[in-house]
Amino acid sequence: MAGGLWFAEDQQQGLELSFKIKNTLVSKQTKYQKLDIYETYKHGILFTLDDFVMTTEHDEFVYHELIAHVPLFSHKHLENVLIIGGGDGGTAREVVKHPVTKIDMVEIDEEVVEMSKKYMPSLSKELTNPKVHLFFQDGVEFVQNTASEYDLIIIDSTDPLGPGEGLFDTEFYRTCLTALKDRGILVAQAESPFDNPNRVEQIFSKLRNVFPVVSAYTGIIPTYPGGLWCFAFCCKEPEALNFFDEARYNALQLELRYYNKRIHTACFALPEFVKTLCQTE
Amino acid sequence: MAGGLWFAEDQQQGLELSFKIKNTLVSKQTKYQKLDIYETYKHGILFTLDDFVMTTEHDEFVYHELIAHVPLFSHKHLENVLIIGGGDGGTAREVVKHPVTKIDMVEIDEEVVEMSKKYMPSLSKELTNPKVHLFFQDGVEFVQNTASEYDLIIIDSTDPLGPGEGLFDTEFYRTCLTALKDRGILVAQAESPFDNPNRVEQIFSKLRNVFPVVSAYTGIIPTYPGGLWCFAFCCKEPEALNFFDEARYNALQLELRYYNKRIHTACFALPEFVKTLCQTE
Repeated sequence: MAGGLWFAEDQQQGLELSFKIKNTLVSKQTKYQKLDIYETYKHGILFTLDDFVMTTEHDEFVYHELIAHVPLFSHKHLENVLIIGGGDGGTAREVVKHPVTKIDMVEIDEEVVEMSKKYMPSLSKELTNPKVHLFFQDGVEFVQNTASEYDLIIIDSTDPLGPGEGLFDTEFYRTCLTALKDRGILVAQAESPFDNPNRVEQIFSKLRNVFPVVSAYTGIIPTYPGGLWCFAFCCKEPEALNFFDEARYNALQLELRYYNKRIHTACFALPEFVKTLCQTE
Repeated sequence: MAGGLWFAEDQQQGLELSFKIKNTLVSKQTKYQKLDIYETYKHGILFTLDDFVMTTEHDEFVYHELIAHVPLFSHKHLENVLIIGGGDGGTAREVVKHPVTKIDMVEIDEEVVEMSKKYMPSLSKELTNPKVHLFFQDGVEFVQNTASEYDLIIIDSTDPLGPGEGLFDTEFYRTCLTALKDRGILVAQAESPFDNPNRVEQIFSKLRNVFPVVSAYTGIIPTYPGGLWCFAFCCKEPEALNFFDEARYNALQLELRYYNKRIHTACFALPEFVKTLCQTE
């Protein structure tokens, strides 16, 4: 390993991904978690929570485009969107590209938003958009006070450890179901099938206990454990699964780097071993 | 980083993937390259050439299933298949699952085959299959002496460095075109769009100079640089691109872990930035 400062994530017992660090920009303990922001040599800004990679400037586009545009283009009449977590702002940045009425964003840790505004403007730039309403509180509590309000809920959480743990509970999924309108969609980041297959299995098992329709899609995020990443796609009625708003897609002419019309369908084609984990086609 | 022995691949300047090593089984200089075989904690056997990861037992199925079954199920009448490289035997193991007549396999380094037979039987087990004919010579020379002979050529090479370099030359691609029958297909491993976009761009640019039809597909290989991996799919006539032998797929009932019918089509749906690199849809 070349000399100098390195950030290493222990991705599994026995496999490590390490970034050579140019500068440590922030290293602090917030009320909820350890927060670090580094400048790397090849990946721009690296943002970690409790020493887990949250995002890098280099490849954040994959995660944020997939968690946002797949459900957004699957819904006919978008009005209200709820983002749970997502404090860096990358998901909100993608959602505002669509003609939605309002975006509520609930982030437990205000310091994540503050630090992103300061050090990751390319991610956080739309957090001041008047459509985006920020709530600094626990996502679990926030959702308990809503009913039939959202067309889309995006769970852009950390791993099921620390402050994000409650966002993986069956009870929480049930309150989300209640918070959705009849044709609503819920999408959640659903962990790594190579690195942590048990976690993927558990998430989908819980979701199937709550949602009438549960499907899965994947994307490739090179700085996340195992490269391959799962997203859960849940709804009350199966129509959303087969709907793609081609008219809006053509009208918006988004300039994206990962998502496109073919990817919208193709990302639901699961590798055989992922199908087994998700118990879904 | 936890104590003990680690193998680290310098994937890019400033990003390293490291495996904790239980045992070094082989560490030698062959006539052509440095060859190491390690026992890891989480990935089974790790096989490296010149300190680059070639494969691990844990995730080799993704690469080998994709490089073999995508072109194999795209061809109606398979008789003769040529594998260039692929000394570990993983590609041959997948090809013999199809009703082909013969498989010629040209590996420059006999010691790769010997070591795989000894330490990676799950990969090399079909190298003694009577349909498989092994030639220990330079793939470039071998192909020069063939014409209109193969239905499928699979270039299962190392990176374009060291002994594998000639397998990325325009001249070599031209001799491959001559070696193919009229309805023949060539598939080549085509490097990492995240880690080395220039290399991907060059490979596809050269292939387009030679083949009438050039397309690309991808897979996710967590222990390869950047996670996402490109494969080039080339043919003389565009029909192969849209053909999927469903009858054979249903008849064979292969028990695979990555490839399936939906993946066959979906893997050709390229992320937007990969489309740009490959200049292909």
